[in-house]
Amino acid sequence: MSSGTQVFDWTVPKEWNIRDAYVANSRGERVIDFHESNLHVLNYSIPVNQKMSLNELSSHVYTLPDHPDWIPYRTSYYNEAWGFCMQHRKFLALEEDEYEVVIDSTLEDGFLSYGEVFLPGRESEEILLTTHICHPSMCNDNLSGIAVLTALAKALSTMDCHYSYRLLFMPGTIGAITWLATNPEAVTRVRHGMVLAGLGDRGSVSYKKSRRGNAEIDRAVAQVLSSHEHQIRDFSPYGYDERQFCSPGFNLPVGRFSRSEYAQYSEYHTSADDISFVSADSLGDSFARLIEVLQVLETNWRYRNTNPYCEPQLGKRGLYNQKGSDEVQQHLRLALLWVLNLSDGDNSLLDIAERTQMPYLTILNAAETLRGAGILEIES
Amino acid sequence: MSSGTQVFDWTVPKEWNIRDAYVANSRGERVIDFHESNLHVLNYSIPVNQKMSLNELSSHVYTLPDHPDWIPYRTSYYNEAWGFCMQHRKFLALEEDEYEVVIDSTLEDGFLSYGEVFLPGRESEEILLTTHICHPSMCNDNLSGIAVLTALAKALSTMDCHYSYRLLFMPGTIGAITWLATNPEAVTRVRHGMVLAGLGDRGSVSYKKSRRGNAEIDRAVAQVLSSHEHQIRDFSPYGYDERQFCSPGFNLPVGRFSRSEYAQYSEYHTSADDISFVSADSLGDSFARLIEVLQVLETNWRYRNTNPYCEPQLGKRGLYNQKGSDEVQQHLRLALLWVLNLSDGDNSLLDIAERTQMPYLTILNAAETLRGAGILEIES
Amino acid sequence: MSSGTQVFDWTVPKEWNIRDAYVANSRGERVIDFHESNLHVLNYSIPVNQKMSLNELSSHVYTLPDHPDWIPYRTSYYNEAWGFCMQHRKFLALEEDEYEVVIDSTLEDGFLSYGEVFLPGRESEEILLTTHICHPSMCNDNLSGIAVLTALAKALSTMDCHYSYRLLFMPGTIGAITWLATNPEAVTRVRHGMVLAGLGDRGSVSYKKSRRGNAEIDRAVAQVLSSHEHQIRDFSPYGYDERQFCSPGFNLPVGRFSRSEYAQYSEYHTSADDISFVSADSLGDSFARLIEVLQVLETNWRYRNTNPYCEPQLGKRGLYNQKGSDEVQQHLRLALLWVLNLSDGDNSLLDIAERTQMPYLTILNAAETLRGAGILEIES
Repeated sequence: MSSGTQVFDWTVPKEWNIRDAYVANSRGERVIDFHESNLHVLNYSIPVNQKMSLNELSSHVYTLPDHPDWIPYRTSYYNEAWGFCMQHRKFLALEEDEYEVVIDSTLEDGFLSYGEVFLPGRESEEILLTTHICHPSMCNDNLSGIAVLTALAKALSTMDCHYSYRLLFMPGTIGAITWLATNPEAVTRVRHGMVLAGLGDRGSVSYKKSRRGNAEIDRAVAQVLSSHEHQIRDFSPYGYDERQFCSPGFNLPVGRFSRSEYAQYSEYHTSADDISFVSADSLGDSFARLIEVLQVLETNWRYRNTNPYCEPQLGKRGLYNQKGSDEVQQHLRLALLWVLNLSDGDNSLLDIAERTQMPYLTILNAAETLRGAGILEIES
Repeated sequence: MSSGTQVFDWTVPKEWNIRDAYVANSRGERVIDFHESNLHVLNYSIPVNQKMSLNELSSHVYTLPDHPDWIPYRTSYYNEAWGFCMQHRKFLALEEDEYEVVIDSTLEDGFLSYGEVFLPGRESEEILLTTHICHPSMCNDNLSGIAVLTALAKALSTMDCHYSYRLLFMPGTIGAITWLATNPEAVTRVRHGMVLAGLGDRGSVSYKKSRRGNAEIDRAVAQVLSSHEHQIRDFSPYGYDERQFCSPGFNLPVGRFSRSEYAQYSEYHTSADDISFVSADSLGDSFARLIEVLQVLETNWRYRNTNPYCEPQLGKRGLYNQKGSDEVQQHLRLALLWVLNLSDGDNSLLDIAERTQMPYLTILNAAETLRGAGILEIES
Repeated sequence: MSSGTQVFDWTVPKEWNIRDAYVANSRGERVIDFHESNLHVLNYSIPVNQKMSLNELSSHVYTLPDHPDWIPYRTSYYNEAWGFCMQHRKFLALEEDEYEVVIDSTLEDGFLSYGEVFLPGRESEEILLTTHICHPSMCNDNLSGIAVLTALAKALSTMDCHYSYRLLFMPGTIGAITWLATNPEAVTRVRHGMVLAGLGDRGSVSYKKSRRGNAEIDRAVAQVLSSHEHQIRDFSPYGYDERQFCSPGFNLPVGRFSRSEYAQYSEYHTSADDISFVSADSLGDSFARLIEVLQVLETNWRYRNTNPYCEPQLGKRGLYNQKGSDEVQQHLRLALLWVLNLSDGDNSLLDIAERTQMPYLTILNAAETLRGAGILEIES
């Protein structure tokens, strides 16, 4: 999308590019160097090439006094400005001097780019999965989202799915607004969706509900997370791109799947959000939970008991005694009876799992067992 | 109903009759004797007349190692088999020997029999009360249900009732299925119902809700039990014949009234569920609570305040001061005011009792007092 | 309204007037004197002029043994009777004597009078505010209600209001019944209402909900009180004139605003409910909370976000950064975002305040700020 394009109330901004940036002392030594960390430059800084005193420089420097070894991440999207972000400890060590200050950047008409993966399913109804890509040099927020969504793309591409999947890798806010403004037809096909962000830290999984609060996606995630340590938060019009998907004109059933809540950990938006801050286990766990959620969405149909008057006789169909201990057998038999009892065409499998507080997979297996035995059918 | 008749997904089984059964040792002494306790025989055992070693016999013997003096109660309805149930202590005392094993039973085409009492009321709408009769040699489960339902039949036959009453004494599962399959018109007239079982043990009264969960019967029982120690359980598709009445094709407003939950006490389905396990007080208390529940159902109408604009003047009708202490008077006056206030034609007496948390009888008396004074009428 | 007029089920009673009343001993000394306290006479006493023994007098004397220095307040509206109320200590000091007993009262056809203030607003829909006036010589119950309603009349008369206001100063029960019976058209215009009583004691503010339980007035008061120590009670058909307004034929959205619940403090309906029992702070606090409630009612509209697709860009309208600390700014920004998010034409400001648990004024200010910026409009 070209810079200057109107997208709803917003305008696609100029494209920012940067080749080099540094501050050098009078001996020519770089005391701040973009090539050491790209966080050193205030994002969207306009070009600079000046000599100045420490005092003058200071008003353009951002540090974290409470974390003197960390570099903060700062942006200035809608005010033209320039600046450097650095470790507070190094800042304090700067001496009075005349500094050469260079930011070799361009802020010019260009394009807003985003990645889109579309995986057609058996149906045209879509599940929308998105992540932001605007500062991938930080690991949890936001490289982890990119990594997990990429893994999901790979996994989903090998599956035979009911839904079509649309996976979007976009800069935050303006990316989502641009996509929503320019894809009105795809928007109408979104049946469920999640914004993915912050999926690698060591906190437990969490979910922020859609504006609707009880959309099928909200209930499916709650069901999957119920057997894990987790947190569920109500919707609020703040956070990541759920803000746009859940604006009142769209009100899409899109929640946000995360681990620790953004801005609630001190590493957030600093150089300390690095590879050591995320764990492979957490990334894997996030991926596994998301696959489980998609499995619920892909199978959550309403079934109909074709033998609704009294119980069907399980014994003559070999369903009364299943494998396992007495306790397991009783549990599985109870699942069969619940599915038969509630499959009146009104209750979905998720409804049944919620009412019985049995795991969704147990309910799904019971339903498929009964369907195999010819006494349950999917309600068309 | 003849053996072999198809009733929904089930078939009426063969009729089992038994004259004698025993195990005798080589000295001709009966070490197990059906005439001592009919629990000694696995119910539905096919005929046997054999000699065999202790080892061979053992695989057909059921005992309760944790309760060595009790005889378990076992059945084999849908697998043709034979067996004996005995005290574990006596089983351990059996010596190596050649035993004569005799079960003089027949399993042949016959009839499924059940008892039905129909008490016509002023209206054709029915209240259905049922109990199982398949193992009456155990006292709480199930002779107590038979006893209390018989007492209810007697009591109801002397009353002038709004509803018609249908009382069914049936073998569990297949009895209820047979009745449901063969009485489609009566089924449509069922307005409320309860399965009665386990009414004599010393536990507190309990109720398992119908599948609907908030049917009038569910609310009426909860209202009656609220002033007693009690337990209320949600519906589940397991237990007694509520499983059949609440199958999705029927979904009748039928709950189950019990005391201790079946299978939760160790005497359940053993010879220890004998006359000493039940108490006359518990049987009487079960009966009294059931009568109270029926009284709620029989009187739970919607009334209409014929003076709905402002309060009617109670004083000029002699209703302001009633008999009793100040506190009692205030309580009765408040009941009058609540009934007047809520009798807009939408609220039943049960609705009023629930909202005010006053006893149903207080509300009923207030309503009838006001009706007597001409300022309340039953909403037709 | 003339004595004898039929008002619904009631009749306007005779008018009671009193000039003097006393009990004098044989030495001519007044031992009870109406001119010392008008509580000394049982209200509505018929005229008396007799000599009698202490014993005979005693059966007409009301005292409070537990509070021997207080004079009780007693009435006999619907039984013709006479009596005196006095300090228990003074009663015990009365000697055997022949007493002259005089009540110079009249109970004759006359008029029921009440005060009515009507303040026309921009709309004909009315807010009804009432207080009882039947025993103003007691301070909390009921002079405080008269005082606060008078102050509200004064304040409202200077304001430009959406609603019309009707303020009624009436004797309890019969006053409200008379007004309701004779103002059928005004009744249909009542959109919200409150009965005011007991507004000066040192207890926290309290509110008794209307019969509807979730009327806008009930929610508005709960919203205002939520940031103060308070109590909210469910409706019951007992208490002050809410009994009449909430009778089923009217079912008006009228609750009661009070401080301590009547009859729950021992000074209630005694001479101890005097000026020392109320505080200026409490009266002022009651007034302030009521003004807040009216402000909610006057502004609780549904707005519509005119930019409902994605968030509007706050920054370009100067709305992103507001005055105040970071925390305050974040709070105000969140209020803007919530109002934008929920203003889909369905949610009123009160709905938004309830969902977000933000103060109503914060939400109202956010709405008006956004309306000023042209991105929100009032839903017509």
